[in-house]
Amino acid sequence: MESIITSSYSVHFNQKAYDALDRYLSGEKYSKIFILVDENTRKHCLTPFRNGLRTEFTFEVLEIESGEENKNIHTCVKVWNALSELDGDRKSLLINLGGGVLCDLGGFAASTFKRGIDFINVPTTLLSMVDASVGGKTGVDLGSLKNQIGVINQPRMVLILSDFLKTLEERQLQSGFAEMLKHGLIQDASYWDTLKSVSDFKAMDTLIHTSVVIKNNVVLQDPREQNVRKILNFGHTLGHAIESYFLESEAHETLLHGESIAIGMILEAYLSFKLTGLPKNQLEDIKTVFLSKYPKPEFQNTDIESILTLLKFDKKNAYGTINFVLLKHIGEPVVDVRIPEDLFHSAFSYFKE
Amino acid sequence: MESIITSSYSVHFNQKAYDALDRYLSGEKYSKIFILVDENTRKHCLTPFRNGLRTEFTFEVLEIESGEENKNIHTCVKVWNALSELDGDRKSLLINLGGGVLCDLGGFAASTFKRGIDFINVPTTLLSMVDASVGGKTGVDLGSLKNQIGVINQPRMVLILSDFLKTLEERQLQSGFAEMLKHGLIQDASYWDTLKSVSDFKAMDTLIHTSVVIKNNVVLQDPREQNVRKILNFGHTLGHAIESYFLESEAHETLLHGESIAIGMILEAYLSFKLTGLPKNQLEDIKTVFLSKYPKPEFQNTDIESILTLLKFDKKNAYGTINFVLLKHIGEPVVDVRIPEDLFHSAFSYFKE
Repeated sequence: MESIITSSYSVHFNQKAYDALDRYLSGEKYSKIFILVDENTRKHCLTPFRNGLRTEFTFEVLEIESGEENKNIHTCVKVWNALSELDGDRKSLLINLGGGVLCDLGGFAASTFKRGIDFINVPTTLLSMVDASVGGKTGVDLGSLKNQIGVINQPRMVLILSDFLKTLEERQLQSGFAEMLKHGLIQDASYWDTLKSVSDFKAMDTLIHTSVVIKNNVVLQDPREQNVRKILNFGHTLGHAIESYFLESEAHETLLHGESIAIGMILEAYLSFKLTGLPKNQLEDIKTVFLSKYPKPEFQNTDIESILTLLKFDKKNAYGTINFVLLKHIGEPVVDVRIPEDLFHSAFSYFKE
Repeated sequence: MESIITSSYSVHFNQKAYDALDRYLSGEKYSKIFILVDENTRKHCLTPFRNGLRTEFTFEVLEIESGEENKNIHTCVKVWNALSELDGDRKSLLINLGGGVLCDLGGFAASTFKRGIDFINVPTTLLSMVDASVGGKTGVDLGSLKNQIGVINQPRMVLILSDFLKTLEERQLQSGFAEMLKHGLIQDASYWDTLKSVSDFKAMDTLIHTSVVIKNNVVLQDPREQNVRKILNFGHTLGHAIESYFLESEAHETLLHGESIAIGMILEAYLSFKLTGLPKNQLEDIKTVFLSKYPKPEFQNTDIESILTLLKFDKKNAYGTINFVLLKHIGEPVVDVRIPEDLFHSAFSYFKE
């Protein structure tokens, strides 16, 4: 699989990834190497990762608890303290071995420790391979508000080792797959058609590569999310609010990120049908595909009200208005669309049908 | 006073500062403007600052407690929460109206809120005018370790309003003056001679301007502190350790930053005499000047041991070794000098003489 060159680093795949890291570590003089894991990646990924490398190096393992509920500044303080107590200095390297939560938090911890040390991301979930691997977003949640605190900062490299997907449950894979479906919806109708017919996750390498290429092309055009990069937020404006709400709500099971944005994409496809001319048959196609793969929770009116309240706290809502990415057609997005408030309720009604 | 142009923004003085901010605010479309103050700058600086501006704008005031002991992530969380609760978004502006602690913390809070909002620094102490005004260092302390957490990020502009110096006590002014003396020591022997003879702080504008020019010239050559910028750390390697130690120690009065680095500069001048050829008469001159202006605390052996332990945690000590900036002559620094451990004890003995 060809390596993908981003603005400042490369995304390497499988054996090439191990080779690239071997070359890199023998060229760079780091004073200390830290590997950040959670209880899952310590168990399933740390040994194979270490065994995949030929370079001799010593490292310290830092462990945090997995889960979005731990993606906060308190966990970050623990990482900073551990780095400090283990004599981490400005010439230290942090390797983030884990999913999106771990890579986002580890990237933020590294970017702010002693005003910034180098880090490398080794995403271990499908979601983080196709999403967090490119773009340089790092950060943590603030209370129930997702990714409120963070910086844009690039890793030295990203390694995608698709063998790690074998350690994941089906539900986790399906969650990551939602971001790939999004890549089709916002950039490539034929990729959307290909993905629709994927029925198992055994041979994903080419598809992961395509998704990273799509995301990278978007980010390269607009690193600071002034314009075109906003299209990556399709499904996320409502999806984030739904994810945040379900995380706090006692009446609902927590939804995974991909499950939340799958709902967000159905709702925002409905808004697209109403406001930007998405054809009815494409709207139906989108709804059918997502409902065939993802859970359909019951939304009460009180749930919907709370979700709409959270919407206005989304960090992307500049000037207090809520701007959405919608679709004209599958593969053709429009940014900065303002939504009349009553349409949100119709969108949820359509979802419930 | 001429404005000083840094890598990406300008430092404006007095009436020109108000004019520049007026022009800026009428040109930029911010959704919300926040002014961060502490109890002192709320009382003494907020109203004159607001009255100095002709532009009409509404703003929210955020208040934190003054003092190095509040320069931590908990205070930062309060600022983030306040920004979030008051509907701060990506198009918000934070104006930091305060001393070094407030500007450092406010700059970090702004740089990390929603992955970065704009901020402007209005330093209100002599120390922050001549030091924090240029260089883009932002951050907070981690436990007793100073500035362990932070990022390098530039404000949109810096405004130096020297009228605010009238609100400061003599001891605060003297503390800031230590950084100016440092500028002489590391860059300009004649500036050092000028400063030695300053006996009151009434007409400081030209001297402040000179200090900002010196610091800016150094930072422009090396923004990421790879090389020449390290010279700004003269007196700070030991000075920081002393400041941290006195902050935590129950047996000692807390030292201000300038008071700590004044001691650090005497100690490091002694190391310069021993290792890099600083002439004896210049060492004596440095000691005499600093002891005539700053307190001379009693150091017990246990104090010295604790201070040396803290040294190794200083964030600048890459690879676990302690690298110092020393002087060949006044005005002529050398970077990356390693110090034999026993010399530290002789340096403290010399200080006590």
